[in-house]
Amino acid sequence: MSLINETHNVALSSWVESANQDGCDFSIQNLPLAIFRRKSSNEAFRGGVAIGDQVVDLKSLSDSGVLSGLAQQGALACSQPSLNKFMSMGKEAWSALRLSLSRALRTGSDVQQQISTCLVSQSEVEYSMPCHIGDYTDFYTSIHHATSVGKLFRPDNPLLPNYKWVPIGYHGRSSSIGISGQQFHRPVGQLKAPEADTPILAPCKRLDHELELGIFIGAGNNLGEAIPITEAENHVFGMCLFNDWSARDIQAWEYQPLGPFLSKSFASTISPWIVSMEALAPYRASFTRSSEDPQPLPYLSSEQNSQHGAIDIELEVLIQTEKMRASGQPPEKIANSNFIHSYWTIAQMVTHHSVNGCNLRPGDLFGSGTQSGPEPEEAGSLLELSAGGKEALTLSNGESRTFLEDGDTIVIRGGCRRKGAAYIGFGEVTSTVLPANS
Amino acid sequence: MSLINETHNVALSSWVESANQDGCDFSIQNLPLAIFRRKSSNEAFRGGVAIGDQVVDLKSLSDSGVLSGLAQQGALACSQPSLNKFMSMGKEAWSALRLSLSRALRTGSDVQQQISTCLVSQSEVEYSMPCHIGDYTDFYTSIHHATSVGKLFRPDNPLLPNYKWVPIGYHGRSSSIGISGQQFHRPVGQLKAPEADTPILAPCKRLDHELELGIFIGAGNNLGEAIPITEAENHVFGMCLFNDWSARDIQAWEYQPLGPFLSKSFASTISPWIVSMEALAPYRASFTRSSEDPQPLPYLSSEQNSQHGAIDIELEVLIQTEKMRASGQPPEKIANSNFIHSYWTIAQMVTHHSVNGCNLRPGDLFGSGTQSGPEPEEAGSLLELSAGGKEALTLSNGESRTFLEDGDTIVIRGGCRRKGAAYIGFGEVTSTVLPANS
Repeated sequence: MSLINETHNVALSSWVESANQDGCDFSIQNLPLAIFRRKSSNEAFRGGVAIGDQVVDLKSLSDSGVLSGLAQQGALACSQPSLNKFMSMGKEAWSALRLSLSRALRTGSDVQQQISTCLVSQSEVEYSMPCHIGDYTDFYTSIHHATSVGKLFRPDNPLLPNYKWVPIGYHGRSSSIGISGQQFHRPVGQLKAPEADTPILAPCKRLDHELELGIFIGAGNNLGEAIPITEAENHVFGMCLFNDWSARDIQAWEYQPLGPFLSKSFASTISPWIVSMEALAPYRASFTRSSEDPQPLPYLSSEQNSQHGAIDIELEVLIQTEKMRASGQPPEKIANSNFIHSYWTIAQMVTHHSVNGCNLRPGDLFGSGTQSGPEPEEAGSLLELSAGGKEALTLSNGESRTFLEDGDTIVIRGGCRRKGAAYIGFGEVTSTVLPANS
Repeated sequence: MSLINETHNVALSSWVESANQDGCDFSIQNLPLAIFRRKSSNEAFRGGVAIGDQVVDLKSLSDSGVLSGLAQQGALACSQPSLNKFMSMGKEAWSALRLSLSRALRTGSDVQQQISTCLVSQSEVEYSMPCHIGDYTDFYTSIHHATSVGKLFRPDNPLLPNYKWVPIGYHGRSSSIGISGQQFHRPVGQLKAPEADTPILAPCKRLDHELELGIFIGAGNNLGEAIPITEAENHVFGMCLFNDWSARDIQAWEYQPLGPFLSKSFASTISPWIVSMEALAPYRASFTRSSEDPQPLPYLSSEQNSQHGAIDIELEVLIQTEKMRASGQPPEKIANSNFIHSYWTIAQMVTHHSVNGCNLRPGDLFGSGTQSGPEPEEAGSLLELSAGGKEALTLSNGESRTFLEDGDTIVIRGGCRRKGAAYIGFGEVTSTVLPANS
């Protein structure tokens, strides 16, 4: 079965002119969803679809009577202040709404006039969390990240024996996940210097970003019913950019034996737009294991997963310090990577997560884990870029960084680019470190 | 300030006669809350208060017009199918409802007739989750459990260096938490025998219970605002019994470096009744550290915490195998313990959890961690009782157990007992292991 349908046709253009510009994140082949309202208004938050520099208000669209059938039911579900209902409706509904929107927004559409009244400029809107996240799980799918970080702790034995068999993950904190634009106070916690006898309570000194992708669960499963890998992606609603802030010094002292806790739970930030798995279809890639590595166990293997389990998503991390902001200097790139390097696929994450019978619910979020590539400049965290804080990065304005300072903003951008397919942008996630609360 | 008020008076009796019987869990001094409805009915779930063998239906009570002021607002909030709203109202509201209920249910109450119409027999009801649990955090507060389990993995170094400084905790899975009566399939997962080269996918062979208390957060805090220890208990709504099921073989293979994941997320079971912190006031005890141990850091210390940070709650674990059930044999005790042995207090858990700015929300659940006492028979898990699976327990009918078998039911009971105070029972949490799904 081909994953490609008429919505992916690279020749499609939109009557929303801004969507047709080169490099626009939100082409008519993309159509990501968010929850939005007009800035500083008392409007109810509701679902919207990005097209060029506009948002199609799905509440207005649902009220307009332009859509019908499953697409209309989907738009109605998206009229609520969270996408959980729509997520729970499953792939057929997601696909029906996407197809209707693609047709309605195309050049030559016969409903252009009605849809025009549903548009709001992105410059006029603010975003909210796209859904209620019941549980958040963070995976650890970059073998390059796992190896680099492992080297810092265990130079002779960087990668633990389970890594190549188990899609390692751990439960995260959902309450502190915020939307792009999030500002958060530098966390305070117990720190113990290697040479000190006792810990102290102090603001984190080794504050770090983590370049991740977020994966939203759509339709859930019942407790006790594992999701086979052949059905795994039917449960995936879409993807966003994700910055999983980390306090490395708090983490080093607290994490044994039960894993990271307060080093992670002070803030995590997602981008507002969720790109559907359908929009990403042209960027699927084969998933293979090096002959030196073990093949995944049978429950984590399928023909489909081998053929197009991977996804080619380009990622970059930028920093804007307070000094850069004051002098009008835009964010500066410090790393780039690609999700194609992931050692485990999304289907493998879903299937592994549920193999014990664990129930996933609509709106649950997976973090992909820090996406570092094989090259040093493809590291998804400052811990790696600064070799554990030993080698400072020098920025173009002369400033340097090992870890983040107060006032620093981290921006993550991502998108899919290939000849013969439309560019699919993720937009960006940006967030800023405030000083510790005293 | 004394924690004791008129609701604790041991001389109080209720016109609901069953509440006055010796050893009744739900005396008039207790008044725990649950969410219930009549069994197999289509009624909406709503809040109820236990008194003797009855439930006071808080929806009926709220409709009756008997209460007024904050107590009535509280009862109204409890008319919903979850207690989150009432939890968010804070200590003053919880206390007002408790006082009104205590007065209304006392012998000689002038509203006995009206309240009588709000009673439903506990034998006729079924329970639902008491609230929506946003995030679930599991702590590790028993130094005896941490030491016993640590010995199995690291005989020379059982307790890690951070244990006596950090109230160790980790994020858990909220979706798979169920109410007493939960039946769950033995989890399947990756297992690797020590001598094997590669893991296999198979049903867990080392399935275990964990004797814990659950702690519900009432009023939350804003992201970025730590909760000082002097205010910590104002944020705690109450406690229940908690069985945090664990798959020891899955855990051993998966847990490094990010902690337990699928070994925990297949099921966890809570008792239906939440006992308020106010009901537990007569059982508070001083919290001290042995002179060999470090004193807690200042943010984890307060006069109040030293004076009555601990709570004297007796706990016991019982097993009923399929064979016992078939022959009509009641559950048989395999361990008893007491929450007073906890190395960290509830206030310390709350304050530590929020010291990094992490926001707690009404309905969030903390697990206390397995509550093992200092003696071998006070172990809160089979892992400890069987010395890591090496020494089987012999049951009175001749059966033996190292870990749990299909059809086994584990019952946890708890209560507070002291001369000069009323018995405060927690009821029980019971759950049963079903065979693995093939």
